[in-house]
Amino acid sequence: MSKFTFIVENEAFEGVKRIAKKVGDDFKKVCGVYPVFSKLVPADKSSPNSVIFATLGKSRFVDTLTREGKLDSSVISGKREVFCIKFIDNTLLVCGSDKRGTIYGMFALSEYIGVSPLCFWGDVEPQKREDLKIAKDIETVSKEPSVKYRGFFINDEWPCFGTWAAGHFKGFTAEMYDHVFELLLRLKGNYLWPAMWTSSFALDGPGGLNEELADIYGILVGASHHEPCLRASEEWDKVRGKDSIYGNEWNYYKNKNGLLKYWEDALIRSGKYEKIITIGMRGERDSSMLGDNSSLKENIDLLKDIIKNQRDLIKKHVNPNIDEVPQVIALYKEVEEYFYGKEGVDGLKDWDELNGVICMLCEDNFGFMRTLPTAALRSRKGGFGMYYHFDYHGGPVSYEWVASTSFERTWEQMCMAYDYGIKDIWIVNVGDIKFNEVPLNYFMELAYDFEKWGTRSPNKIGEYTTLWLNKNFPNEKKETLDKMADVLHGFIRINAARRPEALNADIYHPCHYLEADRMLALAEKIDSLNEEIYSALNKNEKEAYYSMVYFPAKSSVNLLKMHLYAGKNRHYAAQGKKIANKYADLVTDCIEKDRSLKSEFAQFKKGKWAGMELEQHIGFTKWNEDNSRYPLRIQVEPAYKPRMVVSRKDREEIYTKNYGPLMTIEVNDFLYAGNDEVILEIANDGIGKLDYTIETDKEYPWLEISPLKGTVEFQEEIKIRCKREKLDKQFAEEKARFIIKDKDTKVAVEVKAKVINVELPEMTFLENNNVIVINANHFCAKKEVSKGGFIELENYGRTGCGMKVFPVTSDFDEKEEKPSLTYRFLIEKSGDYEVEVWTTPVNSVQNKRPLRCHLENSNGEKQIIVTVPEDFRAGSPSDERWCQGVLDNIRINKTSFKFEKGVQEISVSALEAGLVLERIVIYPKNNPPLKSYLGPLESCYK
Amino acid sequence: MSKFTFIVENEAFEGVKRIAKKVGDDFKKVCGVYPVFSKLVPADKSSPNSVIFATLGKSRFVDTLTREGKLDSSVISGKREVFCIKFIDNTLLVCGSDKRGTIYGMFALSEYIGVSPLCFWGDVEPQKREDLKIAKDIETVSKEPSVKYRGFFINDEWPCFGTWAAGHFKGFTAEMYDHVFELLLRLKGNYLWPAMWTSSFALDGPGGLNEELADIYGILVGASHHEPCLRASEEWDKVRGKDSIYGNEWNYYKNKNGLLKYWEDALIRSGKYEKIITIGMRGERDSSMLGDNSSLKENIDLLKDIIKNQRDLIKKHVNPNIDEVPQVIALYKEVEEYFYGKEGVDGLKDWDELNGVICMLCEDNFGFMRTLPTAALRSRKGGFGMYYHFDYHGGPVSYEWVASTSFERTWEQMCMAYDYGIKDIWIVNVGDIKFNEVPLNYFMELAYDFEKWGTRSPNKIGEYTTLWLNKNFPNEKKETLDKMADVLHGFIRINAARRPEALNADIYHPCHYLEADRMLALAEKIDSLNEEIYSALNKNEKEAYYSMVYFPAKSSVNLLKMHLYAGKNRHYAAQGKKIANKYADLVTDCIEKDRSLKSEFAQFKKGKWAGMELEQHIGFTKWNEDNSRYPLRIQVEPAYKPRMVVSRKDREEIYTKNYGPLMTIEVNDFLYAGNDEVILEIANDGIGKLDYTIETDKEYPWLEISPLKGTVEFQEEIKIRCKREKLDKQFAEEKARFIIKDKDTKVAVEVKAKVINVELPEMTFLENNNVIVINANHFCAKKEVSKGGFIELENYGRTGCGMKVFPVTSDFDEKEEKPSLTYRFLIEKSGDYEVEVWTTPVNSVQNKRPLRCHLENSNGEKQIIVTVPEDFRAGSPSDERWCQGVLDNIRINKTSFKFEKGVQEISVSALEAGLVLERIVIYPKNNPPLKSYLGPLESCYK
Repeated sequence: MSKFTFIVENEAFEGVKRIAKKVGDDFKKVCGVYPVFSKLVPADKSSPNSVIFATLGKSRFVDTLTREGKLDSSVISGKREVFCIKFIDNTLLVCGSDKRGTIYGMFALSEYIGVSPLCFWGDVEPQKREDLKIAKDIETVSKEPSVKYRGFFINDEWPCFGTWAAGHFKGFTAEMYDHVFELLLRLKGNYLWPAMWTSSFALDGPGGLNEELADIYGILVGASHHEPCLRASEEWDKVRGKDSIYGNEWNYYKNKNGLLKYWEDALIRSGKYEKIITIGMRGERDSSMLGDNSSLKENIDLLKDIIKNQRDLIKKHVNPNIDEVPQVIALYKEVEEYFYGKEGVDGLKDWDELNGVICMLCEDNFGFMRTLPTAALRSRKGGFGMYYHFDYHGGPVSYEWVASTSFERTWEQMCMAYDYGIKDIWIVNVGDIKFNEVPLNYFMELAYDFEKWGTRSPNKIGEYTTLWLNKNFPNEKKETLDKMADVLHGFIRINAARRPEALNADIYHPCHYLEADRMLALAEKIDSLNEEIYSALNKNEKEAYYSMVYFPAKSSVNLLKMHLYAGKNRHYAAQGKKIANKYADLVTDCIEKDRSLKSEFAQFKKGKWAGMELEQHIGFTKWNEDNSRYPLRIQVEPAYKPRMVVSRKDREEIYTKNYGPLMTIEVNDFLYAGNDEVILEIANDGIGKLDYTIETDKEYPWLEISPLKGTVEFQEEIKIRCKREKLDKQFAEEKARFIIKDKDTKVAVEVKAKVINVELPEMTFLENNNVIVINANHFCAKKEVSKGGFIELENYGRTGCGMKVFPVTSDFDEKEEKPSLTYRFLIEKSGDYEVEVWTTPVNSVQNKRPLRCHLENSNGEKQIIVTVPEDFRAGSPSDERWCQGVLDNIRINKTSFKFEKGVQEISVSALEAGLVLERIVIYPKNNPPLKSYLGPLESCYK
Repeated sequence: MSKFTFIVENEAFEGVKRIAKKVGDDFKKVCGVYPVFSKLVPADKSSPNSVIFATLGKSRFVDTLTREGKLDSSVISGKREVFCIKFIDNTLLVCGSDKRGTIYGMFALSEYIGVSPLCFWGDVEPQKREDLKIAKDIETVSKEPSVKYRGFFINDEWPCFGTWAAGHFKGFTAEMYDHVFELLLRLKGNYLWPAMWTSSFALDGPGGLNEELADIYGILVGASHHEPCLRASEEWDKVRGKDSIYGNEWNYYKNKNGLLKYWEDALIRSGKYEKIITIGMRGERDSSMLGDNSSLKENIDLLKDIIKNQRDLIKKHVNPNIDEVPQVIALYKEVEEYFYGKEGVDGLKDWDELNGVICMLCEDNFGFMRTLPTAALRSRKGGFGMYYHFDYHGGPVSYEWVASTSFERTWEQMCMAYDYGIKDIWIVNVGDIKFNEVPLNYFMELAYDFEKWGTRSPNKIGEYTTLWLNKNFPNEKKETLDKMADVLHGFIRINAARRPEALNADIYHPCHYLEADRMLALAEKIDSLNEEIYSALNKNEKEAYYSMVYFPAKSSVNLLKMHLYAGKNRHYAAQGKKIANKYADLVTDCIEKDRSLKSEFAQFKKGKWAGMELEQHIGFTKWNEDNSRYPLRIQVEPAYKPRMVVSRKDREEIYTKNYGPLMTIEVNDFLYAGNDEVILEIANDGIGKLDYTIETDKEYPWLEISPLKGTVEFQEEIKIRCKREKLDKQFAEEKARFIIKDKDTKVAVEVKAKVINVELPEMTFLENNNVIVINANHFCAKKEVSKGGFIELENYGRTGCGMKVFPVTSDFDEKEEKPSLTYRFLIEKSGDYEVEVWTTPVNSVQNKRPLRCHLENSNGEKQIIVTVPEDFRAGSPSDERWCQGVLDNIRINKTSFKFEKGVQEISVSALEAGLVLERIVIYPKNNPPLKSYLGPLESCYK
């Protein structure tokens, strides 16, 4: 057993001393024995297992080494939060440029010996290595973090986090926050917005213990936009009152002195700690304090008065040199308007007082940037922050359950934020932390090392994931890790295609384009991979995997299946088929599975996380859970006798017994390239069983029907396959007809097929059943200009690919030469066509400017598509257009073009920055594709 | 015990002899002993219990009496089918003017002793009277039947009648037909179209027994439009063939000689019997023999050739004096066109050859007359017949189950037929006979004694029913008979409002206007009356009641309930309420009840009717049963905790927990006269129970809410009542607000009320929730003119009243003075209004003329409403307009009028004959009443 000695000098930061104990715990986990602690650096540094934790300016030892020339402290000196790790003889020195630098270095050592930053929150037990040795390769000098303040916001914390904290730590206490702080530090973060729904960080320690502990650890505690001057909004309700010294109204206009006193007392109490102080104010329930009839100028003036007085209090009680006190103002909702002002009314942006204050922006709550700083504003001294969401409580629908924002989305949008100059604060709402620990890890990594993972490294999620998995599952082979990555991103992408709460039986179409079946297959694939991985892992890794991946993945695919089965239940019930009842039973199974998954999780590790499983997540009918509903299940009563009903698996129409001419199913699919199979369903809608046979008038060498007879109790499938190689090229079109019959019923099927035998230029897309679908990355030509060009985003969005102009700050005049993508397709019949442009539901990031793209066909006909109009209110649940976009995770705009028969092209270019193109869909006017959520499959191309 | 002697002389008709035995059976049933039969009239006629059955010209005894002056035979002599019953001393003489006259007289005797014409078919056992005496009051001289040929058509006879006949009589044999013939004769009918789906009357006896027996009884056997010259269409398939002497094609153009031979052989075989011979011909499957491109003239010429040759064969083989042979030609579908011809092309109507032939017309298959004879045609020598339906196999939906045509409809439409000169044949399709025996009895009575029951006697269905019930349930008090009448007409009216097969969960609205609840209450009322009557009857009457009323009524209301429950299940499921599950269970109960009712019926009287219960009747989705469906049942999974959901019982919207302003239910109903109660539903959508309370801010003397608190496991009701007398007349409008709350949820209710305190002229209708509804009989003025006037039809149509111009042959020019009805109403706000005119879905009875009515408002603004346009194809399932009318049993047309605030009037008059007005509905343009089947309730009037 390797026994280590940890040396922390007397003068070291208290935080370093405390973290040393945590690192000691890490070493005990790995080598089985807790290190010896010493305050004195031994004279003999030949001991191979000694580790010294020190900070520049807080270590005599480091001073000595520097003096002796054994350490070049200039590599870290004067830098923010950096550390070096270096062997001094045989002794390992971990030295930070400042307190956080040291702590990051200490946890870097933990990571080096195999302890994951998610050891507690992700249940990652390190591998035991009794003969642990620390080798030369640990030596490093860290970088300065890319973003200055990086952290997360515990929010929307009931029922989960709150129940868990109450059950395990008597509430939002320092004992509980110790775990939160440790997580933040292990993730190399420094900034936290604590929980605030029913708690007051400054009071719940109990007493001031929370603030004290945060300060010891070097964590800057902040608050969101409506909790200025270090005082939680919960506190207000405790002290307000008619006879209170603070008064009773949260209205600066009416209760100025009371509020200033309220803030002053908080600054006296909490101002002594390292903090980022929120300034400004919003009315109660986000209302205007001056009433709806007040002018913009009146409101701006009032806010200026508030800020001026708040800053005076900060000068008085915190630091007379106020520029040394980090402050933030949130540009949220109406405050954004006050920031920009308008013609004739100066906004806050033009007010020198705010120069040194960080301006905090917020995306639209659904992960899409809104207005970003203009080039002029980017250079402001105070800089900018971004409040991002992995969890949201609000309209059009809350998402507070397991992870539902894809890493690709976070990358794309946060890179955009960074490139627009938002580098001072990145904070992400992580809800209850649990179930967002993996995306959080990524977010923190991106904020810490943007140079490595940011804009310069598109499409590196796979690489990041492999590294992350390697760290957390070091025993597993690449192959297993790849499967884990598939499960992890698989379930998140499912949740990202439609937030789990916004799923219901009506989302994925139960039959068109076999959409529900494709989603079911995807769910099954993820589910079986998940089970396969889980069952093969050893106990330690099983727990980590269960906690971070298995449970949320299993629950997510189960939820998806529940709604898909419910959709198919409804579909088959509408068709009158008794097979519907089987799907009703499957829905019931999923409901029960959802419950059992939750209760198993609550019991995991003797109840370690009990409470975290409580989030409602099934069938929201409004923005929150209040009227959420389980899927309905429809029961079909079988007819009194066996009764044959035939249908295409991908259509709603049914074909039954008919007097006179037989009902006839048309299968025209084989007239189009890319379709080689159509499935028919033969259902028995009555009691008992029926026997069917298929009769053709003759042999068709190009047609395969299987099986040709069978017995049906509920429903069976018949596959119709086209063997294209056997089609006679002489004929424009071939036809076959066959009859499906049982004792009572006959239904006819007419199949048409043709050889597609035309010479076409490369990347020419062909029509399929009246529609041409082109994924954005399947252009035939791409034009780049000096200002930028399109780059492909892999695994992006609902479609799986996105095309976006980089650099992301580029935008273009209508007449300017623009980067473009050209798509090529064959039009079979001249006429008017609809061209749909499918884009990611991003917002315009330019204040008061729309988001548009430019289309041009081969004839030079031009159209501008406005994907986001000027009056669009991103983030506002009352703007139906925005809601639709973030719910569907796609924005579809369309225009009309005339196309002549033959090969045609259309070019797409972006006018404003930020547009992400996912798909082009073309179909004859007034003949749209069938209803579905994801749309038709991509068409075939030559 | 009374022992009777029946005397039938040797020379009497064989039919009379046979019927005497049946009357003997009747006597045995009544007095317990079979009469003694004698062929000789005793010299001593003092025996009080002797009955002589005789026919003029076939009785020496009658000859003698006439000679002796003891009988004035001139009262019946030379008349059609009349009889006299008279005591000759103590001996009773029943003497007919002809064979059928005698038989009718014999069965009149049976009726006199208490034997119902429905003794077999309705299971009516006569009352035992061992000391039976026949009194002087039996003496009578009957009338000539109003309609010359009266009878019914056994049709659509599978699965019921066919299974029954096969199971009990080895098929469509003479043994079976004996019961049919007896029924026809007891109902004083003389004409029959036998079953023809899989049977050939002339062959199934076995051999010729059917034809022989019919002839013995004096029954004229005919056939429908596509079975000319006494040969069933089933026969054709047996003898056709490539090598057949008749050829293989049912096409006179291609196979003239074969077909003529085919008909000739039938005329030789069957022409010897008294018959009505169908002439003419239709193509196979009702297709044109000359193809679609043939001209009208070509088709007419072909048909003339057919008829000419058919009549030559009749002259040759049946009777050279062809005018003595009754013949019929059906003017059906394309033949109607051939009959009328067109400008420049003479139709069959202009062809002398047809002068003596009865022209058979058909209603639209749903009981509504189509083109009726013009005044000019009415006088044609051959006269007219009408083919009516109580049972129909075809589109838009088949109705082949229990009775579903109201007596009132039959009266109204058949009277119209008679008044248009259709007096030679009345035949009604009765399906399987069983379950149409009671309406059939009425139909035959109307045909026999039109003078008593016809046009001169509107609104006498009640009187008829009392007589009929008295005859069949002689032991019961008036009070019970009235209840029986309520059940009988109650279930038929339910079935008539929507044919049972066309019912489904989407017909009656599950909540608007509490339509489903009102229908449920009606069903429950009929059901409990039915049970009450049934349980109180003695065994004999129980059987008759069960057979004719109880079973069809019980089954009908059960079916209605099944669909109503399914509608409410769907409604509550859409609202997310777990109470939906209770309604799913109720649907299941109804499905099981339907099955148990059927199996009980099959076992009734040791299986006497087994087979007759087999008709499919649930949820047709096309014209026939092939894809019929039981109602779907939806299962709701309760939420994880008790959860309060409030709604108005008569609306779809639900009111649930909300952050911010409470969801508020508006109750504006008390602003309108006639509304004194609104019901709220408080549902618990989660597990367990919840406790609610209602809080008002103050007492409202005019408002009663009850109960004010309660516990809800599934759903409870709160009644809100307006006590109008307590409303303060000073206020234009009063308002109240209260809160319904449980632990989690609050919902507000706002109630408005006002005193309606205006001086209005009589019969002024008031708005109710934006709509004014006036039933047609609630006019404020009625104008009659010399040509006619409106008469009210009671219990008529879907609305319960109809207004129709009599005499029914009257029509009017646009400029002519017309009878009219004026309706009065108060308009609260000047503006554009829609005026809906609800009429019975009758057709225009005038060839190529629309059916219109004329509207005029108080300002003299005039509008013509075309309820049936010229291109309307009554009876054609491909005319959606016609289908809608006969399915919904109402036709709604609308127009717009401007109305000023204040008392307004609108007058309605008919332009064409036959229009029946049921309702006027007025509402502001673009603000229609809520969706429902029956529409809003009639508005209140002063």
